[in-house]
Amino acid sequence: MAEPIPIIGGTGALGYGLGLRLARAGQAIVIGSRKPERAEEAAAKLREAVPGAEIEGLPNDEAAKRGPIVFLTVPFRAQSETLTNLKEALAEGQLLVDCTVPLAAAISGKATRTVGVWQGSAAQQAQEMAPDGVTVLSALHTVSAPVLAGDEPLDEDVLICGDKKADKSRVAAVIELIDGLRAVNAGPLEQARIVEPLTAMLIGINGRYKTHAGIRITGLPDADHWS
Amino acid sequence: MAEPIPIIGGTGALGYGLGLRLARAGQAIVIGSRKPERAEEAAAKLREAVPGAEIEGLPNDEAAKRGPIVFLTVPFRAQSETLTNLKEALAEGQLLVDCTVPLAAAISGKATRTVGVWQGSAAQQAQEMAPDGVTVLSALHTVSAPVLAGDEPLDEDVLICGDKKADKSRVAAVIELIDGLRAVNAGPLEQARIVEPLTAMLIGINGRYKTHAGIRITGLPDADHWS
Repeated sequence: MAEPIPIIGGTGALGYGLGLRLARAGQAIVIGSRKPERAEEAAAKLREAVPGAEIEGLPNDEAAKRGPIVFLTVPFRAQSETLTNLKEALAEGQLLVDCTVPLAAAISGKATRTVGVWQGSAAQQAQEMAPDGVTVLSALHTVSAPVLAGDEPLDEDVLICGDKKADKSRVAAVIELIDGLRAVNAGPLEQARIVEPLTAMLIGINGRYKTHAGIRITGLPDADHWS
Repeated sequence: MAEPIPIIGGTGALGYGLGLRLARAGQAIVIGSRKPERAEEAAAKLREAVPGAEIEGLPNDEAAKRGPIVFLTVPFRAQSETLTNLKEALAEGQLLVDCTVPLAAAISGKATRTVGVWQGSAAQQAQEMAPDGVTVLSALHTVSAPVLAGDEPLDEDVLICGDKKADKSRVAAVIELIDGLRAVNAGPLEQARIVEPLTAMLIGINGRYKTHAGIRITGLPDADHWS
C-alpha cells in the first residue's frame, strides 16, 4: 500500500509485532504512542530490525492522521481513554481496526476470563466512541503478540469482523501482506462478541500446552475469499 | 471402549453423526430419544450404515444408564427439560458431555447469535442441573453435524472444557476414536462460555463461504496431549 499504516499503541507487544511484520512486507508504518519519545524509541528499534523500512514514531493523535486504515492495539484498559483522545484526530472515511480484548486482567482478574462490555464487545464500544464517518472493524485477536514480534513463520488465520465486506476486504489486504496469515470474514462487527474472548481461551491453552497457539478455520474453499 | 456410549438426543443431526462415526470406529452406541420408536428407528438406520455395529435405540432415561460417559446432543431449547427427566437416570460417577449451544435460534432469533445463559453457558446450566456426583464436560460445538453424519474425512479439533484433566482425558479418548478429530484441552468448564458461541460464528462462516467449517488450534506440540 502506498499510504502508511498507523498503529495506535504500537509500542505494545501486539502493535510492535504487527509493525515488524508489515515493515518486513515493505509496508510503511507509523508507530503511535501516548508518549512521543516512546513512539520514536519503538520506531528506531523497528528501523534497526528492518533496514530500509519506512517507519515513523509519533504521538497517537498525529499518527492516526497518517493513513486511511488505522490499527488500535492498546490494552483494553486504555481503549476508552485513547479513543477520547483521538476524537479530533480521526476523520470521516477512515477505517479503525480495533484489536483490543476485554480481558478480566484489565480489572485485576484473570487473563483467561473476559469482562462484559456494555456494548457487547470492545469493538462495539470503539464504534460507539469513534467520530461520525469512521468505520470500526475488529481483527487480530488470535495472533500471539510474541510470535508476531519474532522470526518464526506464521501459519494461521485472522478473523475479521465488520459490517461491510468492502471494508473488511481492505483490512484483509493489509493483514495478508504478512506471510502466513489468512484473513477470514467472521461476519458483522457484533461477532466480535464471539471472537474477542478467543484471546482468553488461547491464553489458557498457551499456559496448558506451553506454546503460542492460534486459530485456523477448517473447510474453507481455496479461492480468494475477498474477490 | 468395552462399555457403550449413550447419546441422549441421538436422533438429531449431531447425535446421529457422532453415533455414526463412533460406530464406524467399532464403538458400541446407545441412541437415546424422548420417543422410543424414534430411537429404534435411528438405531436401525445406523445398523444399516455400519453393518455389524453394536447399536441400541432406547428412551433417553434408559439409554443414559448404559455407559459411564454420556453425550447430550439435544437442542438447547430441550436441554433443561431433558436434564430434569434424567435426574433419576444419571448416577454418581458418570461423565455427562454437554454438546448443546445456546443459539438465539432457540428463541426464534438468529443461529449466528447466542442468548445469555444465567449460569454463563449451557454446560454450566447442565452442571447445575445434573445429579450430585455427575460431572459435566463440554465438547463438540465446532464440528459440523452434517459433516459428522457424512462420509468425508475429518481434519479438525474438538475443544473440551471440564474442571478435571483426568475426566477430559477420558472424553478425549472417546472423541479421538473418530478418525481426523483431535481433542484439545480448552480449560475449565467455565470456558464453555467462550467455546459454545463458536458454533454461532461458524454458522455465519458456513453461510458466507458455502461450506461446513471447523476449528483447528495452531501451534500445539505434537506430543500426546492427554498422557
